[in-house]
Amino acid sequence: MARMKAAIFVEPGRIVLDEKPVPDIGPNDALVRITTTTICGTDVHILKGEYPVERGLTIGHEPVGVIEKLGSAVTGYREGQRVIAGAITPSGHSYACLCGCHSQDGAGTRHGFKAMGGWRFGNTIDGCQAEFVRVPDAMVNLSPIPDGLTDEQVLMCPDIMSTGFSGAESGRIRIGDTVVVFALGPIGLCAVAGAKLMGATTIIGVDTVPKRLETARRLGCDHVIDFKAVDPVEEVMRLTDGRGVDVAIEALGTQQTFESALRSLRPGGTLSSLGVYSTDLTIPLSAFSAGLGDNTIVTTLCPGGKERMRRLMEVVASGRADLGALVTHRYKLDDIEAAYDLFSHQRDGVLKVAITP
Amino acid sequence: MARMKAAIFVEPGRIVLDEKPVPDIGPNDALVRITTTTICGTDVHILKGEYPVERGLTIGHEPVGVIEKLGSAVTGYREGQRVIAGAITPSGHSYACLCGCHSQDGAGTRHGFKAMGGWRFGNTIDGCQAEFVRVPDAMVNLSPIPDGLTDEQVLMCPDIMSTGFSGAESGRIRIGDTVVVFALGPIGLCAVAGAKLMGATTIIGVDTVPKRLETARRLGCDHVIDFKAVDPVEEVMRLTDGRGVDVAIEALGTQQTFESALRSLRPGGTLSSLGVYSTDLTIPLSAFSAGLGDNTIVTTLCPGGKERMRRLMEVVASGRADLGALVTHRYKLDDIEAAYDLFSHQRDGVLKVAITP
Amino acid sequence: MARMKAAIFVEPGRIVLDEKPVPDIGPNDALVRITTTTICGTDVHILKGEYPVERGLTIGHEPVGVIEKLGSAVTGYREGQRVIAGAITPSGHSYACLCGCHSQDGAGTRHGFKAMGGWRFGNTIDGCQAEFVRVPDAMVNLSPIPDGLTDEQVLMCPDIMSTGFSGAESGRIRIGDTVVVFALGPIGLCAVAGAKLMGATTIIGVDTVPKRLETARRLGCDHVIDFKAVDPVEEVMRLTDGRGVDVAIEALGTQQTFESALRSLRPGGTLSSLGVYSTDLTIPLSAFSAGLGDNTIVTTLCPGGKERMRRLMEVVASGRADLGALVTHRYKLDDIEAAYDLFSHQRDGVLKVAITP
Amino acid sequence: MARMKAAIFVEPGRIVLDEKPVPDIGPNDALVRITTTTICGTDVHILKGEYPVERGLTIGHEPVGVIEKLGSAVTGYREGQRVIAGAITPSGHSYACLCGCHSQDGAGTRHGFKAMGGWRFGNTIDGCQAEFVRVPDAMVNLSPIPDGLTDEQVLMCPDIMSTGFSGAESGRIRIGDTVVVFALGPIGLCAVAGAKLMGATTIIGVDTVPKRLETARRLGCDHVIDFKAVDPVEEVMRLTDGRGVDVAIEALGTQQTFESALRSLRPGGTLSSLGVYSTDLTIPLSAFSAGLGDNTIVTTLCPGGKERMRRLMEVVASGRADLGALVTHRYKLDDIEAAYDLFSHQRDGVLKVAITP
Repeated sequence: MARMKAAIFVEPGRIVLDEKPVPDIGPNDALVRITTTTICGTDVHILKGEYPVERGLTIGHEPVGVIEKLGSAVTGYREGQRVIAGAITPSGHSYACLCGCHSQDGAGTRHGFKAMGGWRFGNTIDGCQAEFVRVPDAMVNLSPIPDGLTDEQVLMCPDIMSTGFSGAESGRIRIGDTVVVFALGPIGLCAVAGAKLMGATTIIGVDTVPKRLETARRLGCDHVIDFKAVDPVEEVMRLTDGRGVDVAIEALGTQQTFESALRSLRPGGTLSSLGVYSTDLTIPLSAFSAGLGDNTIVTTLCPGGKERMRRLMEVVASGRADLGALVTHRYKLDDIEAAYDLFSHQRDGVLKVAITP
Repeated sequence: MARMKAAIFVEPGRIVLDEKPVPDIGPNDALVRITTTTICGTDVHILKGEYPVERGLTIGHEPVGVIEKLGSAVTGYREGQRVIAGAITPSGHSYACLCGCHSQDGAGTRHGFKAMGGWRFGNTIDGCQAEFVRVPDAMVNLSPIPDGLTDEQVLMCPDIMSTGFSGAESGRIRIGDTVVVFALGPIGLCAVAGAKLMGATTIIGVDTVPKRLETARRLGCDHVIDFKAVDPVEEVMRLTDGRGVDVAIEALGTQQTFESALRSLRPGGTLSSLGVYSTDLTIPLSAFSAGLGDNTIVTTLCPGGKERMRRLMEVVASGRADLGALVTHRYKLDDIEAAYDLFSHQRDGVLKVAITP
Repeated sequence: MARMKAAIFVEPGRIVLDEKPVPDIGPNDALVRITTTTICGTDVHILKGEYPVERGLTIGHEPVGVIEKLGSAVTGYREGQRVIAGAITPSGHSYACLCGCHSQDGAGTRHGFKAMGGWRFGNTIDGCQAEFVRVPDAMVNLSPIPDGLTDEQVLMCPDIMSTGFSGAESGRIRIGDTVVVFALGPIGLCAVAGAKLMGATTIIGVDTVPKRLETARRLGCDHVIDFKAVDPVEEVMRLTDGRGVDVAIEALGTQQTFESALRSLRPGGTLSSLGVYSTDLTIPLSAFSAGLGDNTIVTTLCPGGKERMRRLMEVVASGRADLGALVTHRYKLDDIEAAYDLFSHQRDGVLKVAITP
Repeated sequence: MARMKAAIFVEPGRIVLDEKPVPDIGPNDALVRITTTTICGTDVHILKGEYPVERGLTIGHEPVGVIEKLGSAVTGYREGQRVIAGAITPSGHSYACLCGCHSQDGAGTRHGFKAMGGWRFGNTIDGCQAEFVRVPDAMVNLSPIPDGLTDEQVLMCPDIMSTGFSGAESGRIRIGDTVVVFALGPIGLCAVAGAKLMGATTIIGVDTVPKRLETARRLGCDHVIDFKAVDPVEEVMRLTDGRGVDVAIEALGTQQTFESALRSLRPGGTLSSLGVYSTDLTIPLSAFSAGLGDNTIVTTLCPGGKERMRRLMEVVASGRADLGALVTHRYKLDDIEAAYDLFSHQRDGVLKVAITP
C-alpha cells in the first residue's frame, strides 16, 4: 500500500509531519495530488486544542492539485486535470443542500459544538496538508482551474476568499453602502475586497498591524483605523456623520470586535459575523437597540461546491481582485512544522503561507 | 382653548387621567377623535419607569378613531372618516423611509437608547389614550377603515398585529417551515397567526398560561409546550426529530426566551426577535454555532404607515385571521387607571383591553 | 430478464400499454415499484405530438411507490420503504444545482426547445406510468412518505402541487396581497391553494368550468370569474377598485391568459407564468407599461428533490391544504389508455386520475 | 410676476425656447435655480411625438441647481444650497411609496399608457430645461451635492445613472456573474458601470458605434460585440461556452434587442429591460423556454428620491465610477434648440450634452 507524507494532529500543541497510507477512494470520490495548500487560522485553533478533532487526523482544508484518480461513478473529469475543491465539501444530496444551504450539509452535534456544517477536510475526514487527499462527492466538489491561472492565484479560493466574500454577500451590500470591517487578517482583507466588488462606496478597515492596514487600503479600504490609536466606534461614527454603517463585518471572533461592530451599525443595519468565537458573546442592551431596532446579525460558513469555486476563480481570472497577493511566505511540505510556527505566532508580517510538495 | 381628557405619565409608577388642551395641528397633520384604543406592554414598561419618556406626555400608540380636522396641505381624506394609524408614524421623507426602512425614520440616540425608530405616539409626542390625538404626516399615516369592520376588529392592527406578523415576515417563513414561538402574549399570539398565514406547517407555541396556550391552538399552533412542565428546547427537538426549527420567534424580551429560541434553531435557521429587552443578552458559544453556522438573528420594530395598516385590515376583512378576539376586557377612558391596574398585573386572563370614550 | 407493463409513446396520437424489461439500476439509482401514478397535461401534449419525446419512451413523471431495490452506493433508505420522487429529478451535482436552481439541472437544447431543465422522467428517460421506474440520483430524489398518508393524498406532490405552489412562491406573495389566477385546471387550483397558504387576502380565480370554479372557491378563492360571462380583466379591475393585482398567476399557456394576466397587474406587480406555451407570445405595448413600469414576469419549472417533496407532504400531513381531493377518477394501469382518453378530452369533470397497478 | 426662459413642447417636431412665469411654490415645494441640466432620449421621443405630453409643458427631468426658495413647511435645507433631484419625484406618502415602490407613485392610466409611475418633471408637471423648476415634495426629493463635486460630475445621477444602475440591480447581479448589455447609449453604458460595481466578472457589451464600444471598454466591458460584424447571440454563446449569461440588460427598447437579450440567457437567467418600447413585443417560443424555464423578465423605472441620489453621488465622490465623462458636448440654455438638433440626430459621437444658463 502506497504511503505519503501528511501533517497530522497528534495532541494539543502538536501537529507533525508523518507518513500514512495514500487514501482509498469509493465510486463517487476522487484522489487529488496536492500541488499547493496553505494553513488557516482554524488550523491554529486545532493546533492549540481550542477546536477539537480526532487524534491522527490529517489537517488542512484548502486544496489545489491535480486529479490522480477518479471513482468508478465519476464522470465529467479527467485524470491529470488541475482542480481545486472548497474547504466545505457538500454532498449534493442532503436536505441542507436541497434547500440551498449547502454549507450546512451534515451539520449536527459533536463535542458539544452545535453545527459543524459541511466542513469535512481536516475536521471529520483527512485533510489536504499532505501529498494526496480523497475528495468525497467529487462531482459536486472538484472545480477545474481555468487556463493561465497559477496555483497561488487560486489558493485563496477554497476558504479565505469564499469566507471573506460571504461576509460581504450575507451583509447584502448594495451600491452606495458604507461598510466597516473589523480585523484585517486574510479573511477580513477578503471581506474588504468583497465589499468593494459589491459596490460599497465607503469601506472602513479596523486593525492595528501596519502591513494589514496598508494591504487593506490596496484592496479597497477608503479609510483605515488603528484601534490602538483611536476608539474605532467613535471614529466610524465621525466618518459617517453620526449615521453609522449599513453593514459591519466582523472577521476575528472576539467580544470586542463583535460588540464594536454592533455599535457601529446604523438603525436597520446588518452585522455580518465571520469570526470563530471561543467564548460566550454579550449583546449589550445599549448596542442592539433594546429590541426597538430593525437589525440583523448573520453568521456565514464558507460556501463550498464547484460552482462557488468556479465563480471565485472567475473573479481572479477577470482581474477584479488579486487575492493571490496575500501569500507572503512559501514552504515545502517537509517544512510545514516551521510554517505552523511562523503562522501561529504571526511573525514577519505573515498573511498566508503557500505549502508545496 | 378646548380641553380634553388624556392618560398622562406623571412619574414612574403613575399614569393618571387628567385634562390637557386639545392638540393644535399643522399643515400636514390631522386631528383624530379617538373612538377606541388599548394599552400595550410597552406602556406598562413606561408606567414602571423601565422605559423613559418625558413627564406630562400622553401615553398610547394604538389609535382607532374619526378624522376631526385636516391640516391645510392634507388631501385625499375627509372629516368624519373612520381611520386608524400605526403605532409607528413615519414621515415619508426621511432617508430611512426612502430606503424602505420606514420604521427607523427618526432613529437616533436619546436617554442612552440607541434607536427609537419612528415610534412617536406616546414616546416622543403625545399619544392616543386621550379624547383626541394629533397625527403627524397624516397622508402617510391615516388609513381608512373598510366598511363593515368594527373598532375592535381593527384595534390590533396599529401595533400588535403589525409587530407579531413582522416576526413571521422577518423570519422569511416559507411554505412547509417549522416554527416555534416563545411567549404567547398578544404579540406572540399574532406571531402564531402570522406564521400560519405564511404557510408554516408545524407551529409550536411555548408559554405556561392555560388561556394563552388554548388561544395559541386556536390561532394556528399545532403543538403547545408548557415550559413549566417540560424543557421547551428538548421538546422542540423531540417534535422535530432532532432537526430544530426553521424559524424561532421570540416575543417576550428575556435572556431565557432569547437563548431557548437560539438553541431551537436548525443549522441555517433564523431567530426573529420581537421582545423589548431590559438587560444585556448573552449568546452562549454552544448555541450559536461558534461562528460555524449560517444563522440569522433579526429584530424588527412594528412596521407602520397607511399601506401596512391597509394590508392588516385586509387580513381582518378577509377573515384570514381573527385577532379582534384578543380583546378580553373593556373599559371607559374615565376608568383607564383601573385598566392599567388589571393589565399591568395580568389579572383575569387579560390579553388586551379596549378603551372607549 | 423480468418484464413489466408500461405506457409507451409510439407516435403522435398513440400512447399504448405494452411490455418492456424492468429497468436495471446503477450504483446511485433506486428501483421503485409504482403503487399510484397519474397523467399530466404535459403527457397529453406528448400524446398529441405537441411536445417531442423519443418513440418507445415510457411516459409519466408523478411516481408514488415502494423501494424495490437500492443501488450499491445509496444509503439512508431501506427496501420496502414508501416513497415519492418529484417530476424533476436533479442530480445534486450540476452547476445548476449548486447555484440553487435545481430544476435547471441538465437544461440544454434539444429538438429546438431551449431549456428542458431537470425534467427527466417520461421526457429524457423512462417514466413511471409502469410497474417499475428507475429513479436516478436516488439520494437526491427519494422522499419517504410520512406515516398515515395515503398514496392519493401525496399523488399531487411530485408535479401539480410543486408547480402550482411555485407559481405563488415565484410571485413572492406577501401577507395582504391581492392575487388572480388565470385558468383553474389542477395546476391553477394548486396555485390558488399556494396563494392562500402564503397569506394572500384576496384571491380571484378565472375559468369557465363550473366544477373548477366551485373547487377554486373551496381551495381559497374569494371571488371567481367566468370569463365567458364577463371580461375578466375589467372584472379584476372592478374588484380591486382600479388598482390591479399584486400578483397574477398564469396556469394555462395561451396568449389570452398571458395577456390578461399582464393587463391585470398593478404597477410594480408580478406575473408568475406556469403554462406551457405552444406559440410565440406577444406583450402588447399598452399592457406592459412601455418600459415605464416596474414589472416582473417570472416563469418557474416545477421544483423537485426530496426536500421539496418533504415540505409538500408536510403541507398535506398538517391539513393546511387538501389537494388529494383533486383526484376525480381512478383506473388500473391495464386501463391507462382509457384514462388518457378521458383525461385528454377533459370529460366528466375530470381533474386528475389515479392509476394503480 | 417674474419670467424665465424654458424649453417648451409646442407640437410634435417642435420644442422651442420661450418665456414663461417663474413657478409659484406651495408649502411642501422648493424652487430651484437650474445651474446645469441635460437632454434625455425620452425628451427626443417627446420631441418626435412618440411619447405624448401636454402642449406648453416645460421639458427636462435632470436638474442640478441651487435652492432659490423653500416652501413654508420645508425644513432641513437652506436657500443657496447646491442640490439635485431625481427624474422621478415620489411624494413619499402614496401607497406605492409606502410599499417601497417609490417610482410607481402616481402610476395610472393616461393617453393609453398604463403606468406613468412617479415621473413628473417634464411629463406631468413643468420640467427643468429652464432657468427655474418647482420641485414638489421637496423634503423627499432634494439631495445636497457633496462638497467638491462639480455640476457635470453629478449630472448623470438624476436619470442616466439611476436607470442604468437599476438595470444591474434589478437583475440581482452577483459576484462572478456573466452579464451582457444590449445597446451602449448613455443608459447602457451606466448599466455596464453598474454591473461592474456589483461584481460581474464577465461583462459583454453590444453596439456598433465605435465611440460607444470604446467607452464601454473603459467603463467595465471585458468584451464588446459589434452587432453589424457578427451575430451577437452566437457570439455571447461562444464567449460563455454555450452556457448563456446570468443577466442580460436591454437598454434600447426594440424587438431586436429584447429578443437577443432573451436568447442570450442561461436557463434560470434574468432579462433586465430598461428600454422604452414603442411597439408590441414578441417573446418567441424558442427563446423563452416554452414555460419550461425558470426565467425572469424585469422592467425598472429610474429610482428617485433623495436617498437614491445620495447613494449615486457617493459612487461619484468615491471615484468608483466616473460617469461625468459621458458629457461630450456643452450648450447654453439659449442654444438648447441646437442641442436638441445634435442630440436627436446623434451627431458627432454625442453621448450627453450639458446645458447651462
